Amino acid sequence: MDKYKIIEVKQSVFKNNNERADNLRKELKEKKVFLLNLMSSPGSGKTTTLVRTINALKDKIKIAIMEADIDGQCDADTILNKTGVKVIQLHTGGMCHLDAEMTRSGVENLGIDGFDLVVLENIGNLVCPAEFDTGASENVMILSVPEGDDKPLKYPLMFEVCDVVLINKIDTLSVFDFNIEECTNRIHKLNPKAKVIPFSAKTGEGMDAWFEYLLNQVKDWKK
Amino acid sequence: MDKYKIIEVKQSVFKNNNERADNLRKELKEKKVFLLNLMSSPGSGKTTTLVRTINALKDKIKIAIMEADIDGQCDADTILNKTGVKVIQLHTGGMCHLDAEMTRSGVENLGIDGFDLVVLENIGNLVCPAEFDTGASENVMILSVPEGDDKPLKYPLMFEVCDVVLINKIDTLSVFDFNIEECTNRIHKLNPKAKVIPFSAKTGEGMDAWFEYLLNQVKDWKK
Repeated sequence: MDKYKIIEVKQSVFKNNNERADNLRKELKEKKVFLLNLMSSPGSGKTTTLVRTINALKDKIKIAIMEADIDGQCDADTILNKTGVKVIQLHTGGMCHLDAEMTRSGVENLGIDGFDLVVLENIGNLVCPAEFDTGASENVMILSVPEGDDKPLKYPLMFEVCDVVLINKIDTLSVFDFNIEECTNRIHKLNPKAKVIPFSAKTGEGMDAWFEYLLNQVKDWKK
Repeated sequence: MDKYKIIEVKQSVFKNNNERADNLRKELKEKKVFLLNLMSSPGSGKTTTLVRTINALKDKIKIAIMEADIDGQCDADTILNKTGVKVIQLHTGGMCHLDAEMTRSGVENLGIDGFDLVVLENIGNLVCPAEFDTGASENVMILSVPEGDDKPLKYPLMFEVCDVVLINKIDTLSVFDFNIEECTNRIHKLNPKAKVIPFSAKTGEGMDAWFEYLLNQVKDWKK
């Protein structure tokens, strides 16, 4: 089974996570590699979103993926089988988030030279990952329609630290009681600059706005 | 605003959480109070499930609710408005889980004498709450159909520590790719004794089995 590396990332003992995150971000900037930290609840559609995003952009930019999970590797298999880009699996051994040093360990094992965009698919959790700067160029979260439009009220820090909120599964809006406008207002109350993009990773509806935004961010990072 | 108490529960510094949890469980057993620790991802339907459950059982047993949230109090309002039972709101100040001492603080603020069933609605998180014994008589989790049937593979500890897995939102089975049988097999591989009950807290379909099971558990606890 040499399809991709599986790395055990250990919890760091470092108190100065913010400083370490800034250092990693600076190094990535010098290498012109855009690191996207993708966060969400379990089951909100991170992997499906990634597959569509990679396949839309992989002819324009060079992409690699770090799949973080407590255990298992089904998402890494999915990404590899459906996109063919370089993937590594990070196992956190029970840890509920990634910090800057764990991310650095992933980046070093992946080998990022020559890549334009590296995505860290973080642990499915709306609480702890929000507390740790990973060193990413940008934080992006997915909120899915079935989870409810009240989530910004309950998990405010996650919405505060994210540059972009992707509202996924809009193909199920008729089945669930979810008000996109009200949700967007709640997000902007916490984080006025947050970009909110509703789409369906299942049908592809609305995703062009996200692909265009991301491509521009990756290009801007190289300047 | 004196509808219900809002308690700030602080992170404990105690290393011996398991011992403290056992002590709390013993005291609750002596007082014949069944404490249910309800866990799930954000947005899987804990509060909707609770409202239906309370309204089905409140004429048979005396019920009180402890709503734990990082911030906000919308679920406590919902429970109070829709059921009228005693509710308190626990705020964890950013913490991603409750431990035995935080639960004890809630129990003491609630005042449990005379109650048959107290439900702790834990923080929406499939990772950290699984690691801390709260002192509850039973751990119950909700997995909702939109989250996907692969969750036991990715968050195994949560499925290992729960006595019951409630599969919610079965009214949306036609919209999502979720195989109940396969999911149940994955759960039983981790936890052969786990009771799996599929239902829809929105329509009420399948909930009678859960009400009956819970009522029996509460009665058995008093023996």
